[in-house]
Amino acid sequence: MRGHQGASSMAHPRPYRGVFPVAPTIFHEDGTLDLDGQRRCIDFMIDAGSQGLCILANFSEQFVLTDAERETVMQAVLAHVAGRVPVIVTTTHFASHICAERSRRAQDLGAAMVMIMPPYHGATFRVGEPAIEAFFQKVSQAISIPIMIQDAPVAGTPLSPAFLAKMAREIDNVAYFKIEVAQAAAKLRTLLELGGDAIVGPWDGEEAITLMADLDAGATGSMTGGGYPDGIRTIIDPYLAGDREAAKAAYERWLPLINYENRQCGLAAAKILMKEGGVIASAAVRHPLALPHPAAQAGLIELARERGAMVLNWGL
Amino acid sequence: MRGHQGASSMAHPRPYRGVFPVAPTIFHEDGTLDLDGQRRCIDFMIDAGSQGLCILANFSEQFVLTDAERETVMQAVLAHVAGRVPVIVTTTHFASHICAERSRRAQDLGAAMVMIMPPYHGATFRVGEPAIEAFFQKVSQAISIPIMIQDAPVAGTPLSPAFLAKMAREIDNVAYFKIEVAQAAAKLRTLLELGGDAIVGPWDGEEAITLMADLDAGATGSMTGGGYPDGIRTIIDPYLAGDREAAKAAYERWLPLINYENRQCGLAAAKILMKEGGVIASAAVRHPLALPHPAAQAGLIELARERGAMVLNWGL
Repeated sequence: MRGHQGASSMAHPRPYRGVFPVAPTIFHEDGTLDLDGQRRCIDFMIDAGSQGLCILANFSEQFVLTDAERETVMQAVLAHVAGRVPVIVTTTHFASHICAERSRRAQDLGAAMVMIMPPYHGATFRVGEPAIEAFFQKVSQAISIPIMIQDAPVAGTPLSPAFLAKMAREIDNVAYFKIEVAQAAAKLRTLLELGGDAIVGPWDGEEAITLMADLDAGATGSMTGGGYPDGIRTIIDPYLAGDREAAKAAYERWLPLINYENRQCGLAAAKILMKEGGVIASAAVRHPLALPHPAAQAGLIELARERGAMVLNWGL
Repeated sequence: MRGHQGASSMAHPRPYRGVFPVAPTIFHEDGTLDLDGQRRCIDFMIDAGSQGLCILANFSEQFVLTDAERETVMQAVLAHVAGRVPVIVTTTHFASHICAERSRRAQDLGAAMVMIMPPYHGATFRVGEPAIEAFFQKVSQAISIPIMIQDAPVAGTPLSPAFLAKMAREIDNVAYFKIEVAQAAAKLRTLLELGGDAIVGPWDGEEAITLMADLDAGATGSMTGGGYPDGIRTIIDPYLAGDREAAKAAYERWLPLINYENRQCGLAAAKILMKEGGVIASAAVRHPLALPHPAAQAGLIELARERGAMVLNWGL
């Protein structure tokens, strides 16, 4: 982590903590990139209290973008954020050197961190632990900013706590972990036991669906959806300040919305809320992805409105 | 299929039949593209009796290439083949319009066909049948050459024979099917029963591991590995000429090599054989992929040598 050249992230306290939501990739109705909408999305997310952002994640529909579009979105967002908050860029690719080059490029443009899954393709192409470790080693050697390993079902690659802790100890820049598998709290606890100080950032993800249990297990950050960072802050802030009861009450207050996002709307949730609140002009996802049924969209908006989520008023 | 502008494929008899092996993507030892080696690989495959070729498939390591490298390989191969045989280009992408654009680009450069899997990303991102059908419809509308639907475990998307037959009937360019799932022969038989004349090309794949059963079920083509099309020809040629006994004897003769490729060496098999025979200078696969153990490589070469596979002498 020494020698990082991007001034933008040097100003922010380390280690990174709090809510770092995923920014959706914004499209026009016809599916083309809407960069003006993208910038408004980012401005909203920062206004709503995001302590950092993540771009090009799966919830950003990274898998429906071309390589050139990834670059366009990354350039646009990093330039527009301009150091206001640290930005994590997802740089996952199956090929070690391509992931390394993408990560180096993100660092050069000012990314604070890269988020990477172990190599995977489809349902069947995977590699074993020695190759996964070598993959992260090669990426680490190409950069000087921290790596967040994303441990999620989409990669179809079980990563044991012992293996994650080993990589944290042995690979320079591997320092943050986004654990979003079943029983994430138990995994975070074991990871912290085995990895100790090498686990700089034990985080969760998955829209914060298990955030309270994960905070109890030692999580210090959460990568959520982008729709209501203001709500997530009401959980994380008191918890990290030592007020567990207030955090618990806030979690229970926001959980119906979190649950609805996680189980009914998925990656479209943030866009639906942002469209409703005038942040963006279109909630379009790219075909063959599709928006949830209008009733599901209405259900999401109702729950957000009941909680006074900032997103519904920000753009009006 | 009407209105196709690529003169290169007009000269070849239709429907396409026989062996259309997958061309590996050739790398230097350092993992960069070796286009001279790529061209020699193609020349060998044509000399060895390939009735057509497929590029950028999973066995071509398409998932370790950048978008720009896909384009480079496609241009180089189509220019070098120059109509000697029909070339199938794999254009799979999750996004409908990106797959359509890739397919149109392949057609414009002279591809005879495109091969496409249903949209998938990782272990978990999938879409339902209506979205899959709309995806192929959008791609079909962008082109005038046939589409081969690849039905393989990697996509993690069960495609019923009834659904495949429906797409064959209802989507103009959907005409060929590469069935490489468990019990492919049974699926081919049902597909032909349900789809009739709309199933222009009932093919198998998976290195020809079940080719004899698949031919008995009505297969008219096979997409194999690239290492020994001469061997596969000794199976398919007599079968399609009506001599089932000669085909069966040839299948049993080549099966130990096919089995060894399928179960021990996978996508590296063709490269190992081509390197041994002086076709290419390096068998390198891209990190974090790795070559099989030297003993497995030796086992493959032994079986190929015992059968007099052309690959082992072509470049020497």
